[in-house]
Amino acid sequence: MGIVLRIAIILIGILLAFAYRAIQELSVTPRVPKNIEFFEYWGPTGGDPYGDGLDVHPFNISYPSTVIERLRQQLHDVPSLAPPLEDTAFDYGFNSDRLMEIVKYWRTDYLDRWAEREAYLNQFKHYKTKIQGLDIHFIRAQSTEVRNPKRIVPLLMMHGWPGSVREFYDILPKLTAMTNDKQYVFDVIVPSLPGYGWSQAASRPGLAPSKIAVIMKNLMARLGYRRFYIQGGDWGAAIGNLMAILFEDDILGVHLNMCLGSGSPMTIVKMIVADLAPKYFIEEEFIDYYHPFWPRNHQLIVEGGYFNLQASKPDTIGIALQNNPIGLLAYILEKFSTWTNPANRNLPDGGLEKYFSLDALLDNVMIYYLTNSITTSQRLYAEAFSIVELSRKYEFIPTNVPAACAKFRHELMQHPDWILKEHFTNLLQSNHYDDGGHFAAMQLPDVLYNDIVQFVNRLYVR
Amino acid sequence: MGIVLRIAIILIGILLAFAYRAIQELSVTPRVPKNIEFFEYWGPTGGDPYGDGLDVHPFNISYPSTVIERLRQQLHDVPSLAPPLEDTAFDYGFNSDRLMEIVKYWRTDYLDRWAEREAYLNQFKHYKTKIQGLDIHFIRAQSTEVRNPKRIVPLLMMHGWPGSVREFYDILPKLTAMTNDKQYVFDVIVPSLPGYGWSQAASRPGLAPSKIAVIMKNLMARLGYRRFYIQGGDWGAAIGNLMAILFEDDILGVHLNMCLGSGSPMTIVKMIVADLAPKYFIEEEFIDYYHPFWPRNHQLIVEGGYFNLQASKPDTIGIALQNNPIGLLAYILEKFSTWTNPANRNLPDGGLEKYFSLDALLDNVMIYYLTNSITTSQRLYAEAFSIVELSRKYEFIPTNVPAACAKFRHELMQHPDWILKEHFTNLLQSNHYDDGGHFAAMQLPDVLYNDIVQFVNRLYVR
Repeated sequence: MGIVLRIAIILIGILLAFAYRAIQELSVTPRVPKNIEFFEYWGPTGGDPYGDGLDVHPFNISYPSTVIERLRQQLHDVPSLAPPLEDTAFDYGFNSDRLMEIVKYWRTDYLDRWAEREAYLNQFKHYKTKIQGLDIHFIRAQSTEVRNPKRIVPLLMMHGWPGSVREFYDILPKLTAMTNDKQYVFDVIVPSLPGYGWSQAASRPGLAPSKIAVIMKNLMARLGYRRFYIQGGDWGAAIGNLMAILFEDDILGVHLNMCLGSGSPMTIVKMIVADLAPKYFIEEEFIDYYHPFWPRNHQLIVEGGYFNLQASKPDTIGIALQNNPIGLLAYILEKFSTWTNPANRNLPDGGLEKYFSLDALLDNVMIYYLTNSITTSQRLYAEAFSIVELSRKYEFIPTNVPAACAKFRHELMQHPDWILKEHFTNLLQSNHYDDGGHFAAMQLPDVLYNDIVQFVNRLYVR
Repeated sequence: MGIVLRIAIILIGILLAFAYRAIQELSVTPRVPKNIEFFEYWGPTGGDPYGDGLDVHPFNISYPSTVIERLRQQLHDVPSLAPPLEDTAFDYGFNSDRLMEIVKYWRTDYLDRWAEREAYLNQFKHYKTKIQGLDIHFIRAQSTEVRNPKRIVPLLMMHGWPGSVREFYDILPKLTAMTNDKQYVFDVIVPSLPGYGWSQAASRPGLAPSKIAVIMKNLMARLGYRRFYIQGGDWGAAIGNLMAILFEDDILGVHLNMCLGSGSPMTIVKMIVADLAPKYFIEEEFIDYYHPFWPRNHQLIVEGGYFNLQASKPDTIGIALQNNPIGLLAYILEKFSTWTNPANRNLPDGGLEKYFSLDALLDNVMIYYLTNSITTSQRLYAEAFSIVELSRKYEFIPTNVPAACAKFRHELMQHPDWILKEHFTNLLQSNHYDDGGHFAAMQLPDVLYNDIVQFVNRLYVR
């Protein structure tokens, strides 16, 4: 038997095996697990796995002046950074000339007003409560005027990386206010994800998004809500999606800005087909939110380095950023620049102040710095892409929870409705916005607010 | 016409176009460019593009004690790092417990002996000379006993990232000594790549590997050598390969530890075929140097985060590491751990001291720290993967320069001879070693030395 024939036979065999496997997977939908572990313990060994209690205690952001002065000193001992290459803006990453301007603003203007910033961050009520061995921090923003429970709609809002509860500061007052556009007010619970901000990090491996979904469910139960709405972007969207899958009966509605299809084989087939002939599946005016394939994916590769690194070596990059305010500033704010609009790469100032105030951006960086949480925040990528979590394939499972997708033009990655409906079988709303990026709550709070209210209005029954 | 039929027609059309393109490319070999720019200027605007001169002046490594004391202080103000997750080693990246042990050794033991380390680094003769607007640093190691030019073989040795000239300190004395295994001695020139160590970095974008190849050719010409041998790993291998392509007539032989195929369409076809049925193309005992496909590529993904980040955002990660000795230590030494053996991920100490002394590893980190060159070193990835450099496709061009590949078992990525011969049409030697990793010159200097001599012995004529 000639070598060519042998190779041909091997090739055909492999192809047949792949085809069989693919067809098999196309026709099978994984099931929601029956035994979700609601009491899995994530605290340190030696702690009490049954020691949660029901206590919810107020928390106040307050740092001694020594901490602030140490930061000021770190920002003063400015290293000599490599100057940007000539005639480049943010092409090679954060422009170091621009960085030094922001460092100066941070060290002087911003830190001089730290008492004011601290009061600003404390404007909402902060709490901590112990869940599954971890101290979980959250903001709770409620109307003081509305008492009728039928008029109160509970909403869990979840941030992502490299964000924090700070992303929601501009939208919270709108959600809790009595206004003409809605017959209710929201009771908004805004947790810091475990390992982010003031929420304690897991001591043991495995706290993946599907496990955080359980912690968040427990948090809402602790506050008296079995059923509630969810809003989120980035990891907040991923975890919100998993909650809609795992707790389908309890989630009143899920509103996401960053809607992704399920990743199931059928979805992938649809993606390929849609990429080849988008105009058959997507309204003409929205095609450029998703296509064309190559520029979109090229951008994902260019923007995806941090992702690959954090999913594989979170502790290494974490060590480089912990207690390193200048590195933290560059690493975090680069995302607020290019994820808001990829064209910001070509602006010498990164376009950061087009939508955001430096104060707002620095508040967010301060949260990572003060809580020393960058390493633990980055571990979420490793947990989400661990073999164990991937093999669960929860996100392949469709959910019938009422769903809404707010689609901003410069979102890093999102899918057309044709694909989303495979997963969100009850997709009630999908709005495209001609501007906006990954940090919509912070960038365009009015737009996001209106989108949320439009969605909840469809479902709210007095 | 039904939609399915339409899609099918589109699909077939696209496939035909791809197939036509692929066949076309298979049959065309790009040519070596006729007009290589030997005087392209990389210095700052305002500098003198014609101001190189021919001066080669000695250089001595010497830092004031204030620099060392500042470093000691930085290592003393140890940040509180996130503890490793329970029962993990280097799985999530550099283990922070292990890091603190090394930091302590660095701060006390190593820095207390800095004068000794400085003398150690100065044991070879260091020089600088200006080429194309950049001050290029190099070591020149020669025999003091052999004067007969016929007995002297010039050898350019090039390091990679995150290495330095320090990688070659153990092999240099062997190469320059008169020994029974060779009838010659080497005159070894070991440059710091531009932007690495004591070599000046480019001020303008575009200094890609093919452009560094020209600088290195100019360096050897400045020292009086038109024809010479090349040895290298990592970027040193990539640049050495490009020199063998661009200056085929002048390179006496190219010896690489990290041999990659050309990346041409034919090479890719061969790779796929070899992956499907390796035993037809590779000797049984060497198959696991290259296969199986998935574990090998999974490892590349796990180890490739830094690569993606440095190719897209070198300045951001650079800012995080500049003047940050603790971050630098973790980021660099993680590579010396897992690239030497992937199983080191499972060892709490990262296996660092199995082959390397802490002094040797810290010498290398010190070079990045003292020269403040981490950002500029990382830019090489962005330049190598710029659209301009990729579109040159130089590496598709075969070279007939006599070539040798030293293959160490734990090298991150290397190709079997069947594929290499497509590119190295005069592959004279290919040795497989049952141990060893990416930093062979530092890890197994005797093995690498013998491999180099075996190769040159094939070609040397008195």
